[in-house]
Amino acid sequence: MQTLQQKASEWSGVKQEDAFAIDEVNLFEKLGLQAFINLSTDFYTRVYDDQEEWFRSIFADSNKEDAIQNQYEFFVQRMGGPPLYSQRKGHPALIGRHRPFPVTHKAAERWLHHMQQALDNTNDIDHESKTRMLNFFRHTAYFLVAGNDLKNENQGTPPCKHGDNKPAAV
Amino acid sequence: MQTLQQKASEWSGVKQEDAFAIDEVNLFEKLGLQAFINLSTDFYTRVYDDQEEWFRSIFADSNKEDAIQNQYEFFVQRMGGPPLYSQRKGHPALIGRHRPFPVTHKAAERWLHHMQQALDNTNDIDHESKTRMLNFFRHTAYFLVAGNDLKNENQGTPPCKHGDNKPAAV
Repeated sequence: MQTLQQKASEWSGVKQEDAFAIDEVNLFEKLGLQAFINLSTDFYTRVYDDQEEWFRSIFADSNKEDAIQNQYEFFVQRMGGPPLYSQRKGHPALIGRHRPFPVTHKAAERWLHHMQQALDNTNDIDHESKTRMLNFFRHTAYFLVAGNDLKNENQGTPPCKHGDNKPAAV
Repeated sequence: MQTLQQKASEWSGVKQEDAFAIDEVNLFEKLGLQAFINLSTDFYTRVYDDQEEWFRSIFADSNKEDAIQNQYEFFVQRMGGPPLYSQRKGHPALIGRHRPFPVTHKAAERWLHHMQQALDNTNDIDHESKTRMLNFFRHTAYFLVAGNDLKNENQGTPPCKHGDNKPAAV
Protein backbone atom coordinates (compact mmCIF):
# COMPACT_ATOMS: atom_id res chain seq x y z
CA MET A 1 0.00 0.00 0.00
CA GLN A 2 1.43 3.33 -1.08
CA THR A 3 1.76 6.10 1.46
CA LEU A 4 0.29 9.56 0.94
CA GLN A 5 3.69 10.96 0.01
CA GLN A 6 4.45 8.12 -2.41
CA LYS A 7 1.17 8.78 -4.21
CA ALA A 8 1.89 12.51 -4.23
CA SER A 9 5.27 11.93 -5.88
CA GLU A 10 4.01 9.42 -8.41
CA TRP A 11 0.94 11.40 -9.47
CA SER A 12 2.63 14.82 -9.50
CA GLY A 13 5.89 13.69 -11.06
CA VAL A 14 7.72 15.71 -8.38
CA LYS A 15 10.13 13.91 -6.10
CA GLN A 16 9.72 14.50 -2.39
CA GLU A 17 13.16 16.12 -2.11
CA ASP A 18 12.31 18.53 -4.95
CA ALA A 19 8.98 19.44 -3.35
CA PHE A 20 10.63 20.21 -0.02
CA ALA A 21 13.55 22.06 -1.56
CA ILE A 22 11.51 25.09 -0.41
CA ASP A 23 13.30 24.48 2.91
CA GLU A 24 16.78 25.01 1.44
CA VAL A 25 16.19 28.76 1.18
CA ASN A 26 14.15 31.03 3.42
CA LEU A 27 11.68 32.17 0.77
CA PHE A 28 9.88 34.51 3.16
CA GLU A 29 13.08 36.43 3.87
CA LYS A 30 13.99 36.40 0.20
CA LEU A 31 10.62 37.52 -1.17
CA GLY A 32 8.92 39.43 1.65
CA LEU A 33 5.32 39.39 2.87
CA GLN A 34 3.89 41.49 0.05
CA ALA A 35 4.97 39.01 -2.63
CA PHE A 36 2.91 36.31 -0.90
CA ILE A 37 -0.12 38.58 -0.47
CA ASN A 38 0.06 39.58 -4.15
CA LEU A 39 0.42 35.98 -5.31
CA SER A 40 -2.59 34.72 -3.35
CA THR A 41 -4.67 37.72 -4.37
CA ASP A 42 -3.90 37.12 -8.05
CA PHE A 43 -4.45 33.38 -7.68
CA TYR A 44 -7.87 33.68 -6.04
CA THR A 45 -8.96 36.40 -8.43
CA ARG A 46 -8.40 33.86 -11.21
CA VAL A 47 -10.17 31.13 -9.24
CA TYR A 48 -13.25 33.20 -8.41
CA ASP A 49 -13.43 34.42 -12.03
CA ASP A 50 -12.84 30.97 -13.53
CA GLN A 51 -14.98 30.33 -16.58
CA GLU A 52 -15.03 26.67 -15.57
CA GLU A 53 -18.10 26.65 -13.36
CA TRP A 54 -17.35 23.20 -11.87
CA PHE A 55 -14.07 24.53 -10.45
CA ARG A 56 -15.35 27.96 -9.40
CA SER A 57 -18.25 26.35 -7.56
CA ILE A 58 -15.86 24.47 -5.25
CA PHE A 59 -15.08 27.82 -3.64
CA ALA A 60 -18.62 29.19 -3.70
CA ASP A 61 -19.17 28.77 0.05
CA SER A 62 -15.89 30.47 0.96
CA ASN A 63 -15.27 34.18 1.19
CA LYS A 64 -12.62 35.29 -1.29
CA GLU A 65 -10.80 37.57 1.19
CA ASP A 66 -10.68 34.73 3.75
CA ALA A 67 -9.37 32.33 1.13
CA ILE A 68 -6.60 34.77 0.21
CA GLN A 69 -5.59 35.31 3.84
CA ASN A 70 -5.68 31.60 4.71
CA GLN A 71 -3.47 30.84 1.75
CA TYR A 72 -0.80 33.50 2.10
CA GLU A 73 -0.59 33.03 5.87
CA PHE A 74 0.02 29.32 5.33
CA PHE A 75 2.61 29.97 2.61
CA VAL A 76 4.40 32.54 4.79
CA GLN A 77 4.49 30.15 7.75
CA ARG A 78 5.61 27.17 5.67
CA MET A 79 8.26 29.08 3.75
CA GLY A 80 10.26 30.46 6.63
CA GLY A 81 8.17 33.35 7.93
CA PRO A 82 6.29 33.94 11.19
CA PRO A 83 3.60 31.39 12.10
CA LEU A 84 0.72 33.66 11.03
CA TYR A 85 -1.54 30.79 10.13
CA SER A 86 -1.21 28.89 13.40
CA GLN A 87 -1.57 32.01 15.52
CA ARG A 88 -4.97 32.57 13.96
CA LYS A 89 -6.21 29.09 13.05
CA GLY A 90 -3.99 26.45 14.66
CA HIS A 91 -2.46 23.53 12.81
CA PRO A 92 -2.54 23.69 9.01
CA ALA A 93 -3.80 20.08 8.97
CA LEU A 94 -3.90 20.22 5.19
CA ILE A 95 -5.82 17.01 4.58
CA GLY A 96 -8.32 17.58 7.39
CA ARG A 97 -9.06 21.13 6.34
CA HIS A 98 -9.50 20.17 2.68
CA ARG A 99 -12.00 17.50 3.61
CA PRO A 100 -15.06 19.54 2.55
CA PHE A 101 -13.66 19.96 -0.96
CA PRO A 102 -13.59 17.44 -3.83
CA VAL A 103 -9.83 17.41 -4.41
CA THR A 104 -9.74 15.29 -7.56
CA HIS A 105 -6.89 14.97 -10.07
CA LYS A 106 -8.84 17.30 -12.36
CA ALA A 107 -9.34 19.88 -9.62
CA ALA A 108 -5.65 19.67 -8.67
CA GLU A 109 -4.67 20.37 -12.28
CA ARG A 110 -7.05 23.35 -12.48
CA TRP A 111 -5.67 24.73 -9.18
CA LEU A 112 -2.14 24.34 -10.55
CA HIS A 113 -3.12 25.97 -13.85
CA HIS A 114 -4.25 29.12 -12.02
CA MET A 115 -1.20 29.09 -9.76
CA GLN A 116 1.11 28.76 -12.76
CA GLN A 117 -0.63 31.76 -14.37
CA ALA A 118 -0.37 33.78 -11.15
CA LEU A 119 3.35 32.97 -10.92
CA ASP A 120 3.88 33.81 -14.61
CA ASN A 121 2.13 37.12 -13.96
CA THR A 122 4.34 38.39 -11.12
CA ASN A 123 7.74 40.06 -11.11
CA ASP A 124 7.93 39.82 -7.31
CA ILE A 125 9.38 36.33 -7.45
CA ASP A 126 12.63 35.29 -9.15
CA HIS A 127 12.76 32.34 -11.51
CA GLU A 128 14.52 29.95 -9.14
CA SER A 129 12.03 30.63 -6.34
CA LYS A 130 9.14 30.13 -8.77
CA THR A 131 10.51 26.69 -9.65
CA ARG A 132 10.84 25.74 -5.98
CA MET A 133 7.33 26.94 -5.24
CA LEU A 134 5.76 25.19 -8.23
CA ASN A 135 7.39 21.89 -7.29
CA PHE A 136 6.06 22.32 -3.76
CA PHE A 137 2.57 23.27 -5.00
CA ARG A 138 2.43 20.43 -7.51
CA HIS A 139 3.48 17.80 -4.99
CA THR A 140 1.16 19.23 -2.34
CA ALA A 141 -1.82 19.35 -4.70
CA TYR A 142 -1.43 15.62 -5.36
CA PHE A 143 -0.77 14.93 -1.68
CA LEU A 144 -4.24 16.38 -1.13
CA VAL A 145 -5.68 14.26 -3.95
CA ALA A 146 -4.25 11.25 -2.08
CA GLY A 147 -5.78 12.63 1.13
CA ASN A 148 -9.11 13.08 -0.63
CA ASP A 149 -9.09 9.42 -1.62
CA LEU A 150 -9.03 8.47 2.06
CA LYS A 151 -12.64 9.66 2.24
CA ASN A 152 -13.58 6.82 -0.05
CA GLU A 153 -11.86 4.17 2.05
CA ASN A 154 -13.83 2.22 4.62
CA GLN A 155 -11.50 3.19 7.45
CA GLY A 156 -13.20 5.41 9.93
CA THR A 157 -16.57 5.32 8.26
CA PRO A 158 -19.45 3.81 10.16
CA PRO A 159 -19.43 0.05 9.69
CA CYS A 160 -21.76 -1.27 7.02
CA LYS A 161 -23.82 -4.14 8.24
CA HIS A 162 -22.43 -6.48 5.64
CA GLY A 163 -19.36 -4.50 4.65
CA ASP A 164 -15.68 -5.21 4.81
CA ASN A 165 -14.33 -3.02 7.58
CA LYS A 166 -10.64 -3.85 7.33
CA PRO A 167 -8.31 -0.94 8.13
CA ALA A 168 -6.22 0.50 5.31
CA ALA A 169 -2.58 1.44 5.88
CA VAL A 170 -1.95 5.16 5.35
CA MET B 1 -20.73 25.28 13.54
CA GLN B 2 -17.58 25.27 15.65
CA THR B 3 -14.25 25.13 13.87
CA LEU B 4 -11.64 22.48 14.65
CA GLN B 5 -9.60 24.99 16.64
CA GLN B 6 -12.62 26.21 18.62
CA LYS B 7 -13.44 22.63 19.60
CA ALA B 8 -9.79 22.03 20.49
CA SER B 9 -9.76 25.05 22.80
CA GLU B 10 -13.09 24.27 24.43
CA TRP B 11 -12.41 20.58 25.02
CA SER B 12 -8.79 20.98 26.09
CA GLY B 13 -9.28 24.09 28.21
CA VAL B 14 -6.20 25.56 26.51
CA LYS B 15 -6.59 28.81 24.60
CA GLN B 16 -5.20 28.89 21.08
CA GLU B 17 -2.63 31.58 22.00
CA ASP B 18 -1.38 29.47 24.91
CA ALA B 19 -1.12 26.38 22.72
CA PHE B 20 0.93 28.22 20.12
CA ALA B 21 3.09 30.01 22.66
CA ILE B 22 5.58 27.31 21.60
CA ASP B 23 6.39 29.76 18.79
CA GLU B 24 7.53 32.55 21.16
CA VAL B 25 10.74 30.67 21.94
CA ASN B 26 12.81 28.40 19.70
CA LEU B 27 12.46 25.27 21.79
CA PHE B 28 14.71 23.23 19.50
CA GLU B 29 17.60 25.67 19.98
CA LYS B 30 16.89 25.85 23.70
CA LEU B 31 16.61 22.11 24.34
CA GLY B 32 18.57 20.38 21.58
CA LEU B 33 17.80 17.31 19.51
CA GLN B 34 18.61 14.76 22.20
CA ALA B 35 15.94 16.13 24.57
CA PHE B 36 13.30 15.45 21.92
CA ILE B 37 14.62 11.97 21.15
CA ASN B 38 14.66 11.12 24.86
CA LEU B 39 11.15 12.47 25.41
CA SER B 40 9.61 10.50 22.55
CA THR B 41 11.51 7.36 23.54
CA ASP B 42 10.26 7.61 27.13
CA PHE B 43 6.73 8.44 25.94
CA TYR B 44 6.42 5.49 23.57
CA THR B 45 8.01 3.11 26.06
CA ARG B 46 5.13 4.01 28.39
CA VAL B 47 2.59 3.67 25.57
CA TYR B 48 3.82 0.27 24.38
CA ASP B 49 3.97 -0.97 28.00
CA ASP B 50 0.57 0.47 28.93
CA GLN B 51 -1.43 -1.84 31.18
CA GLU B 52 -4.55 -0.43 29.54
CA GLU B 53 -4.90 -2.86 26.67
CA TRP B 54 -7.48 -0.74 24.79
CA PHE B 55 -4.94 2.09 24.53
CA ARG B 56 -1.87 -0.06 23.84
CA SER B 57 -3.74 -1.86 21.06
CA ILE B 58 -4.19 1.41 19.12
CA PHE B 59 -0.46 1.28 18.40
CA ALA B 60 -0.25 -2.48 17.81
CA ASP B 61 0.15 -2.18 14.04
CA SER B 62 2.90 0.45 14.29
CA ASN B 63 6.56 -0.21 14.91
CA LYS B 64 7.74 1.41 18.16
CA GLU B 65 10.98 2.77 16.68
CA ASP B 66 9.06 4.31 13.76
CA ALA B 67 6.56 5.86 16.13
CA ILE B 68 9.39 7.42 18.16
CA GLN B 69 11.10 8.82 15.06
CA ASN B 70 7.88 10.17 13.54
CA GLN B 71 7.06 11.94 16.78
CA TYR B 72 10.40 13.53 17.60
CA GLU B 73 10.98 14.58 14.00
CA PHE B 74 7.61 16.31 13.97
CA PHE B 75 8.27 17.98 17.34
CA VAL B 76 11.71 19.17 16.19
CA GLN B 77 10.30 20.59 12.97
CA ARG B 78 7.34 22.27 14.67
CA MET B 79 9.38 23.70 17.53
CA GLY B 80 11.96 25.60 15.55
CA GLY B 81 14.36 22.94 14.32
CA PRO B 82 15.17 21.58 10.86
CA PRO B 83 12.26 20.12 8.84
CA LEU B 84 13.27 16.51 9.54
CA TYR B 85 9.73 15.24 9.30
CA SER B 86 8.90 16.79 5.93
CA GLN B 87 12.23 15.77 4.41
CA ARG B 88 11.34 12.16 5.13
CA LYS B 89 7.54 12.04 5.03
CA GLY B 90 6.16 15.28 3.59
CA HIS B 91 3.45 17.35 5.22
CA PRO B 92 2.61 16.52 8.83
CA ALA B 93 -1.11 16.59 7.89
CA LEU B 94 -1.96 15.77 11.48
CA ILE B 95 -5.62 14.97 10.99
CA GLY B 96 -5.12 12.98 7.80
CA ARG B 97 -2.32 10.89 9.25
CA HIS B 98 -4.26 10.15 12.45
CA ARG B 99 -7.20 8.93 10.42
CA PRO B 100 -6.51 5.20 11.03
CA PHE B 101 -6.62 5.72 14.81
CA PRO B 102 -9.65 6.12 17.09
CA VAL B 103 -8.72 9.51 18.60
CA THR B 104 -11.46 9.74 21.22
CA HIS B 105 -11.56 12.05 24.28
CA LYS B 106 -10.57 9.03 26.38
CA ALA B 107 -7.63 8.19 24.10
CA ALA B 108 -6.51 11.83 24.11
CA GLU B 109 -6.48 11.84 27.92
CA ARG B 110 -4.50 8.61 28.03
CA TRP B 111 -1.98 10.01 25.51
CA LEU B 112 -1.65 13.15 27.62
CA HIS B 113 -1.26 11.10 30.79
CA HIS B 114 1.76 9.30 29.35
CA MET B 115 3.22 12.54 27.96
CA GLN B 116 2.79 14.24 31.36
CA GLN B 117 4.66 11.31 32.97
CA ALA B 118 7.41 11.45 30.36
CA LEU B 119 7.82 15.20 30.92
CA ASP B 120 7.80 14.73 34.72
CA ASN B 121 10.51 12.10 34.28
CA THR B 122 13.04 14.21 32.39
CA ASN B 123 15.56 16.78 33.53
CA ASP B 124 16.38 17.73 29.92
CA ILE B 125 13.54 20.24 29.78
CA ASP B 126 13.10 23.29 32.02
CA HIS B 127 9.82 23.98 33.79
CA GLU B 128 8.73 26.85 31.53
CA SER B 129 9.34 24.82 28.36
CA LYS B 130 7.42 21.89 29.85
CA THR B 131 4.42 24.16 30.40
CA ARG B 132 4.57 25.46 26.83
CA MET B 133 4.86 21.95 25.46
CA LEU B 134 2.03 20.56 27.58
CA ASN B 135 -0.31 23.35 26.48
CA PHE B 136 0.59 22.61 22.90
CA PHE B 137 0.16 18.85 23.35
CA ARG B 138 -3.16 19.22 25.20
CA HIS B 139 -4.64 21.55 22.60
CA THR B 140 -3.31 19.41 19.73
CA ALA B 141 -4.68 16.20 21.25
CA TYR B 142 -8.17 17.70 21.30
CA PHE B 143 -7.68 19.21 17.85
CA LEU B 144 -7.20 15.61 16.71
CA VAL B 145 -10.31 14.50 18.63
CA ALA B 146 -12.19 17.18 16.69
CA GLY B 147 -10.55 15.89 13.50
CA ASN B 148 -11.54 12.33 14.39
CA ASP B 149 -15.18 13.43 14.68
CA LEU B 150 -15.08 14.44 11.00
CA LYS B 151 -14.97 10.74 10.18
CA ASN B 152 -18.48 10.41 11.58
CA GLU B 153 -19.90 13.12 9.37
CA ASN B 154 -21.67 11.95 6.25
CA GLN B 155 -19.45 14.12 4.06
CA GLY B 156 -17.46 11.97 1.74
CA THR B 157 -18.33 8.59 3.17
CA PRO B 158 -19.45 5.95 0.71
CA PRO B 159 -23.05 4.83 1.08
CA CYS B 160 -23.50 1.34 2.45
CA LYS B 161 -25.25 -1.10 0.19
CA HIS B 162 -27.57 -2.53 2.78
CA GLY B 163 -26.37 -0.79 5.86
CA ASP B 164 -27.60 1.87 8.17
CA ASN B 165 -25.35 4.84 7.49
CA LYS B 166 -25.92 6.58 10.80
CA PRO B 167 -22.71 7.71 12.50
CA ALA B 168 -21.30 5.20 14.95
CA ALA B 169 -19.47 6.29 18.09
CA VAL B 170 -15.82 5.43 17.57
